[in-house]
Amino acid sequence: MSMTVAVCGATGAVGREMLKVLEKRDFPLTRIKLLASERSRGKKLPFKGEEIPVEVLSEDSFKGVDIALLSAGSSTSKRFREAILRSGCLAIDNSSAFRMDPEVPLVVPEINPDDAKAHKGIIANPNCSTIIMDLPLWPLHRAIGVERVAVATYQAASGAGARAMYELIEETKKHIQGEPYERTVIPHQYAFNLFPHNSPYLENGYCEEEWKMVRETRKIFHEPELRVTATCVRVPVLRAHAEAINVTFKRDTSSEEIYGILAEAPGVKIHENREANTWPMPVTASGIDDVLVGRIRRDVSAPRTFDLWVVGDQLLKGAALNAVQIAELFV
Amino acid sequence: MSMTVAVCGATGAVGREMLKVLEKRDFPLTRIKLLASERSRGKKLPFKGEEIPVEVLSEDSFKGVDIALLSAGSSTSKRFREAILRSGCLAIDNSSAFRMDPEVPLVVPEINPDDAKAHKGIIANPNCSTIIMDLPLWPLHRAIGVERVAVATYQAASGAGARAMYELIEETKKHIQGEPYERTVIPHQYAFNLFPHNSPYLENGYCEEEWKMVRETRKIFHEPELRVTATCVRVPVLRAHAEAINVTFKRDTSSEEIYGILAEAPGVKIHENREANTWPMPVTASGIDDVLVGRIRRDVSAPRTFDLWVVGDQLLKGAALNAVQIAELFV
Repeated sequence: MSMTVAVCGATGAVGREMLKVLEKRDFPLTRIKLLASERSRGKKLPFKGEEIPVEVLSEDSFKGVDIALLSAGSSTSKRFREAILRSGCLAIDNSSAFRMDPEVPLVVPEINPDDAKAHKGIIANPNCSTIIMDLPLWPLHRAIGVERVAVATYQAASGAGARAMYELIEETKKHIQGEPYERTVIPHQYAFNLFPHNSPYLENGYCEEEWKMVRETRKIFHEPELRVTATCVRVPVLRAHAEAINVTFKRDTSSEEIYGILAEAPGVKIHENREANTWPMPVTASGIDDVLVGRIRRDVSAPRTFDLWVVGDQLLKGAALNAVQIAELFV
Repeated sequence: MSMTVAVCGATGAVGREMLKVLEKRDFPLTRIKLLASERSRGKKLPFKGEEIPVEVLSEDSFKGVDIALLSAGSSTSKRFREAILRSGCLAIDNSSAFRMDPEVPLVVPEINPDDAKAHKGIIANPNCSTIIMDLPLWPLHRAIGVERVAVATYQAASGAGARAMYELIEETKKHIQGEPYERTVIPHQYAFNLFPHNSPYLENGYCEEEWKMVRETRKIFHEPELRVTATCVRVPVLRAHAEAINVTFKRDTSSEEIYGILAEAPGVKIHENREANTWPMPVTASGIDDVLVGRIRRDVSAPRTFDLWVVGDQLLKGAALNAVQIAELFV
């Protein structure tokens, strides 16, 4: 069997991570094609010991491709939709372009792998914050039943791309030196500062990022009425998202039962040391495939309600790893 | 009338801020006394154009003092309790030493100024996160009735003192340069990282900081059964705390009603620009007396429930300003 895989947006933060994940997991491909915009013309990226040239994305790029991993933003995904469908390849799209399209499966392989089978050429990779929340939530929903989820996020720069990560470091450097810095990606001071997620605000008062967590979770769980709310915040952290999740269950449970369920859950790892007062942190989750969970405790303010502290690598399980795992469903 | 004010812990982050606040508000004192530990012997601090020498704290320090503002930590407050009471001065204590003592009033002047009158020599200044949450919550509780509050905090380095602020900057500098840094205050990597609040963990799974928010709010509001829960997180920000507050009210309300109530609330300022997608941030709240509130929206996941995004200067309203405002109740 010969398989050609294309990575579109290969030079971005997620694209580069996709290459690493494909290599690390020894994805059974016979050829890799790196695609990016005009800006990356002439660049080469390492893959399995070779320097692979980046090709400029065009309508013809998808010909002969079996699986295309797309991470070049919504507008690129939309622009090349027809070319992708015509080429007959399977596209796994990391953008938000088609996630809520009823014709497009939205997949987290540990949760709803069967949905992937119904694809019509495109499978959507969920939003990073959504994947990181849903991974521990799903086994709890199956075993105990989730009545309502309220999450507050602590989101890293990587969610806004490689340039945002660079900007956070550069701005911080300048800030410490007392020098001015001209931002081009992040709209607010990011050095030693934080702000509500800068995605567009909707009429209902939620921002798009928050609304993704609500709607995508409902779609992934096949629970169109699931009660979910989110407050999304960008913090000056590089590449892992943290989430304070408050869950009300349909029946009463215990911290012990939740720990027990999550200890067995795929893609989830309990990570804590109560005696040392150590819990999941962005630096411990960075570069780790599993979503780390800890600090599970009963909420004193409401019945059947518990808190979870969850941290996951935004670039891995939040994006590149999940996309490659979807591709693996087809090999 | 002649009044002597002592600032104990004068060289700390909060102590220095107390001096600035006393000066800025032209507090009617005739003499100021700066007290600190042996470590600060020989230091001088500026006050109203003079350089005031710091005296080393002793049992005799409080003699002749009318009001003592204490911010030297719990153990110091406890150690000098008897000396303070013997001296007959009024102590306003920023530490957690006596906050839950039924004999000690716990006061936010905009909320429960009358409690201050019943003091027996000591008035406690609440925890910083508590003050910042309670200030906007109180007028809503009075007008609408709070049924339950769930808060997730984004807490700045200043909450751990001046040395933690220094450490955050120094560690970040070294981290960017790829050099090692030996931490002495904060137990975890703080550069581009965050972690659940490092106060001791209690048997119920809450950390002390979270439990303070629960218990202190109940005491300040005179609502011993008020349903409050908190998740407290330290973020790499310098001096203002942000809080994502999810409130369920006893009756239904609207964002408009909440905005209306908070627009009139003392110590609170609505700060947002929906069109520009700009909301309260730590850098905008730093150095500002008011607690900034924005992003008030109806929670789609639960009836009678709303979200508020609140940011307040931890050193000002969270500590020094509130303490001086308590003192002002007695002049």
